[in-house]
Amino acid sequence: MTLNVGVIGTGMIGQDHVRRLSRVLSGVRVAAVTDVDPDRARGVAEGLPDARVHANGQDLIDDPGVDAVVVTSWGPTHEEYVLAAIAAGKQVFCEKPLATTRDACDRILDAEVAAGRRLVSVGFMRRYDEQYRAMKAVVTGGEIGDPLLMHAAHRNPSVPDFFTSEMIINDSTVHDIDVARWMFDDEIAAVRVLTPRVSSKAREGFNDPLLVLLEMHSGVLVDVEASVNAGFAYDIRGEVVCEDGTVELSESAGVVTKRAGTHSGRVPADWRERFVRAFDTEFQAWIDAVTAGGTTGPSAWDGYAATVACETGLIALRSGDREPVLLRERPALYDKDSS
Amino acid sequence: MTLNVGVIGTGMIGQDHVRRLSRVLSGVRVAAVTDVDPDRARGVAEGLPDARVHANGQDLIDDPGVDAVVVTSWGPTHEEYVLAAIAAGKQVFCEKPLATTRDACDRILDAEVAAGRRLVSVGFMRRYDEQYRAMKAVVTGGEIGDPLLMHAAHRNPSVPDFFTSEMIINDSTVHDIDVARWMFDDEIAAVRVLTPRVSSKAREGFNDPLLVLLEMHSGVLVDVEASVNAGFAYDIRGEVVCEDGTVELSESAGVVTKRAGTHSGRVPADWRERFVRAFDTEFQAWIDAVTAGGTTGPSAWDGYAATVACETGLIALRSGDREPVLLRERPALYDKDSS
Amino acid sequence: MTLNVGVIGTGMIGQDHVRRLSRVLSGVRVAAVTDVDPDRARGVAEGLPDARVHANGQDLIDDPGVDAVVVTSWGPTHEEYVLAAIAAGKQVFCEKPLATTRDACDRILDAEVAAGRRLVSVGFMRRYDEQYRAMKAVVTGGEIGDPLLMHAAHRNPSVPDFFTSEMIINDSTVHDIDVARWMFDDEIAAVRVLTPRVSSKAREGFNDPLLVLLEMHSGVLVDVEASVNAGFAYDIRGEVVCEDGTVELSESAGVVTKRAGTHSGRVPADWRERFVRAFDTEFQAWIDAVTAGGTTGPSAWDGYAATVACETGLIALRSGDREPVLLRERPALYDKDSS
Amino acid sequence: MTLNVGVIGTGMIGQDHVRRLSRVLSGVRVAAVTDVDPDRARGVAEGLPDARVHANGQDLIDDPGVDAVVVTSWGPTHEEYVLAAIAAGKQVFCEKPLATTRDACDRILDAEVAAGRRLVSVGFMRRYDEQYRAMKAVVTGGEIGDPLLMHAAHRNPSVPDFFTSEMIINDSTVHDIDVARWMFDDEIAAVRVLTPRVSSKAREGFNDPLLVLLEMHSGVLVDVEASVNAGFAYDIRGEVVCEDGTVELSESAGVVTKRAGTHSGRVPADWRERFVRAFDTEFQAWIDAVTAGGTTGPSAWDGYAATVACETGLIALRSGDREPVLLRERPALYDKDSS
Repeated sequence: MTLNVGVIGTGMIGQDHVRRLSRVLSGVRVAAVTDVDPDRARGVAEGLPDARVHANGQDLIDDPGVDAVVVTSWGPTHEEYVLAAIAAGKQVFCEKPLATTRDACDRILDAEVAAGRRLVSVGFMRRYDEQYRAMKAVVTGGEIGDPLLMHAAHRNPSVPDFFTSEMIINDSTVHDIDVARWMFDDEIAAVRVLTPRVSSKAREGFNDPLLVLLEMHSGVLVDVEASVNAGFAYDIRGEVVCEDGTVELSESAGVVTKRAGTHSGRVPADWRERFVRAFDTEFQAWIDAVTAGGTTGPSAWDGYAATVACETGLIALRSGDREPVLLRERPALYDKDSS
Repeated sequence: MTLNVGVIGTGMIGQDHVRRLSRVLSGVRVAAVTDVDPDRARGVAEGLPDARVHANGQDLIDDPGVDAVVVTSWGPTHEEYVLAAIAAGKQVFCEKPLATTRDACDRILDAEVAAGRRLVSVGFMRRYDEQYRAMKAVVTGGEIGDPLLMHAAHRNPSVPDFFTSEMIINDSTVHDIDVARWMFDDEIAAVRVLTPRVSSKAREGFNDPLLVLLEMHSGVLVDVEASVNAGFAYDIRGEVVCEDGTVELSESAGVVTKRAGTHSGRVPADWRERFVRAFDTEFQAWIDAVTAGGTTGPSAWDGYAATVACETGLIALRSGDREPVLLRERPALYDKDSS
Repeated sequence: MTLNVGVIGTGMIGQDHVRRLSRVLSGVRVAAVTDVDPDRARGVAEGLPDARVHANGQDLIDDPGVDAVVVTSWGPTHEEYVLAAIAAGKQVFCEKPLATTRDACDRILDAEVAAGRRLVSVGFMRRYDEQYRAMKAVVTGGEIGDPLLMHAAHRNPSVPDFFTSEMIINDSTVHDIDVARWMFDDEIAAVRVLTPRVSSKAREGFNDPLLVLLEMHSGVLVDVEASVNAGFAYDIRGEVVCEDGTVELSESAGVVTKRAGTHSGRVPADWRERFVRAFDTEFQAWIDAVTAGGTTGPSAWDGYAATVACETGLIALRSGDREPVLLRERPALYDKDSS
Repeated sequence: MTLNVGVIGTGMIGQDHVRRLSRVLSGVRVAAVTDVDPDRARGVAEGLPDARVHANGQDLIDDPGVDAVVVTSWGPTHEEYVLAAIAAGKQVFCEKPLATTRDACDRILDAEVAAGRRLVSVGFMRRYDEQYRAMKAVVTGGEIGDPLLMHAAHRNPSVPDFFTSEMIINDSTVHDIDVARWMFDDEIAAVRVLTPRVSSKAREGFNDPLLVLLEMHSGVLVDVEASVNAGFAYDIRGEVVCEDGTVELSESAGVVTKRAGTHSGRVPADWRERFVRAFDTEFQAWIDAVTAGGTTGPSAWDGYAATVACETGLIALRSGDREPVLLRERPALYDKDSS
């Protein structure tokens, strides 16, 4: 009854997931790990009972003691491991992105379709966040009518030196792209990217913030402020405007303090603080589904559509124009979303 | 010490201002009224002590017992009355718009510049709203750094049958246009208008809501959701995003009620409820300034710039493109804004 | 149509009311002033057109150019001036307290009853505060059922050196006492005063904060935290608990600022910031009513009942016990409250 | 590495904990269950892999395959099972109350002290609630000074027919009693219970709501409104007033919805919705501590002190007076609280 999971990639987020899988969640253990840095993998394994260290991802996937695979390595390596897991017939949870290019995602879709069943789940954890779930419940519940617009903001306090304008779209806005598709159960038809005044905290040649405009096929328009040098906090905002009302994420502070002329609450410091429970819920749901013989959560199609929208966003960032998002036909395997 | 004001136009908003001038504010009385409908003017005058009824605006302006003029008639008539007041050397408070065309505003600027002193004040009452004032104080106070973006929403519960998409810009968004200019002490460089999914409550051929994007010369980008069939309330939202933080208008409910599984507060029902005190403050400031021999508040230049931005917005609504806002050179008379 | 008001007492609150009467409100002017300090009275009069300075309150009341009287002098002098105004048949607005002892209040009631009409209005401005009014509207509207309890807090940032524990009740809690009577349209049956841990900021021998418990005749129990060295702000809280829900005063901040890991709003700095509009509304209502030949607002009976409840509170502070509030029979003149 | 837990009592809360231990938390399984109703125990065991059903609590405790015991049976049975667990040298988590009488708690203290190490943990889950933890962090962090008062409210939407006024104290207020002791790291010196107007929804002879006043040894005064027929929601409120500021539990709604003239958020429907995560955190902490060879969380002393305070509360309910809380000397075993 305990699911044996192998984790490929034991960097920052990989270690956080190892902690989650070994010390927080039910019905699961980490049976094997691997990393591009073998010492790091060994270090992580030392804290785990009976965990094997593999030389590479393929070996880990081939390990008969590994029931299912978690991929949290560097984005460009995702395609290889996801394809290998599909080839091995093992369920795989892949952190976003599914793969870094449209072509790579295409190959994953083809492989999974050929396998004839869903084996891939992609880590868009906001779908498991209580606030986003409550928002979607209101939107789909009908009490405020059909949706017309969504306003969103994704504010990171800061980013490493290697961060670029392109990464604002690929690493930050990708979450808002997935939220838009999920919230409205619709595909993105076109993307625009506007470049407001540049923050003095952004490096030379870096457009930060961006205003990304997503046009859904229904006509619903989603505007996303994406800032990665916001400084003050990790601040995720969202409001859906419908025909008869609106619904927005509330401030999530647990207490209100009054002192020195103000009342105040905390804004989360980083994505871990903000989404710790969403990650827990997401993984427990996946563990339970895999243990029951299936999978759940965002599919390879969701990963594909997000990557294509990001690619289109990069084109739009350069052109300044409205750029259409062109998707292949959706295979029948993905007709019914299981999340 | 009592300022004798004449009011041109005694329709809905004119009557509200007559009430304000005669029963709420200090140091002022309504000495004369006129209206395109003489019976309506007489009806309003009956409730006022010693108020004269004039056949037309020119007669009212010429009345030696009228110290200053308030213009609340139909928009297309504003130019005539404002020019007449300038000609008579009398201070005039003109409800927005200053005039309905760029050319008409040009003529008013020319006349006032020729007069050599400010005689015109335009009714952009949000500049007197406590919440907007607090927001501007934070933005200019420097505690959250230089501004980068502003998000705004202007939601009307409903509009009369004669309302059009153009009026969303001219009658609703004009306030957000003035707020943007005032908040950032900057002119609008360009306007875009996007058309999201159309509300089923909008009439055939009517684009509602709109997403209006204002680009300031500094690069600050302002997005304004303008909805006029929002149904649920009169909901005015605003958030300024700066380099080190943000500031937003709070919900203005006076009490929180808990019942039936929710905690809730009131959203204003209409512009009168939302801005009643802003109108009071605006007029008292104007009365005090006029009594002291000058004027205050948004100038004819502010009225001109708003009308030009609205005209540009209409072009942008039709073209779907980014349209530059082309202003004449600002006369020196307007170098120092007194509000 | 302009009401000529005489103001007795031009200290801090007197000057604030003179400003209000001469520069903010409609249909009123300050015709005369007097003060125990003649220089201070003359200084105030200098800023007013044609205002007379009287040697004492009686002279001011006798001035035929004074239509109505505002008493804002030191509490112990209130009785004399209110009685004189009644004797002169002039309407009088008396800041709280109506008088400082039960016996003095008795004499005022007797005089007003003998006069046969209401001439006295007492300055309990919270009844005119929008938040308290919205709260009362919910409580009396029936949507949350019959009231059971009320929780209140009255927090002053600091008090002068001469302040005492007794003044916490007489000067601060007196407002909560009036609110309780007005909110529930009921008299207070008994008072308890508990003494929590003493703030280190309170002077030696000074019990601050207090927890004052008011028991209404209906059984509704009101607990009032009264703190006068709260330091951080002027913070007025209130929540009424009914059978089917609750209603509470919301935080009144106009904007929410996010910076340095928090979102925050302002708490008022003092009573003027918190209640400035309540004072305006209160006085305009009184001016309008007096101009129309009557009066409005809290009556001498309300002033009497508040003073008796305060006296009982002082007994309870010393005894530590539940002390009954013993009121005389209410004269028929006060059967119908006009506020 | 998997802790084998036996659960005594599989009623409503017992089943919820079985779900938590078997499907939510890490490093634990339910190895055995028992219940006064054997069919109910068997039904629960059917959903668990390899779980044994025992005829009674003693048999379960004696089961060598049971590493640690969870007691969630009817309150009056707690003493027997806790004593048996201590005798068996097994760690035991006992839902509140530790025992229903002072004498029973005394016997447990004596037994644990005789055992020479902590074996008992009591289920006061609020200590693990994120909001209460954030509140305590502010209070102990010193940024708002020393505490003076605490205001609390405990509102249940409804209670079963067998509920009594005594149970308001024993079953509801007991949580606020534990919070007060924990928040201020202090014992309760005295209790008062006031009886406000009785809700028409309370049964004949039933005092609901109550206002319970807890006086800490430091002088901090805690007022607790306890309502069990509040109808509208499960509403838990708390505010600590310190010398330089206050801290209060915020409303916990995840989204704000605007419709029909209001903005609103959800209030939890019941204790499970409100405290689901606190229970998870509490049990995971206990499992981790027990696996590591110790225990954590509220101790038998905390359970004893809460029961004595409740007993004193019942005396105070009857007497209407201030009743002192008389505790035995605290054994050295409890000198250092491990939670």
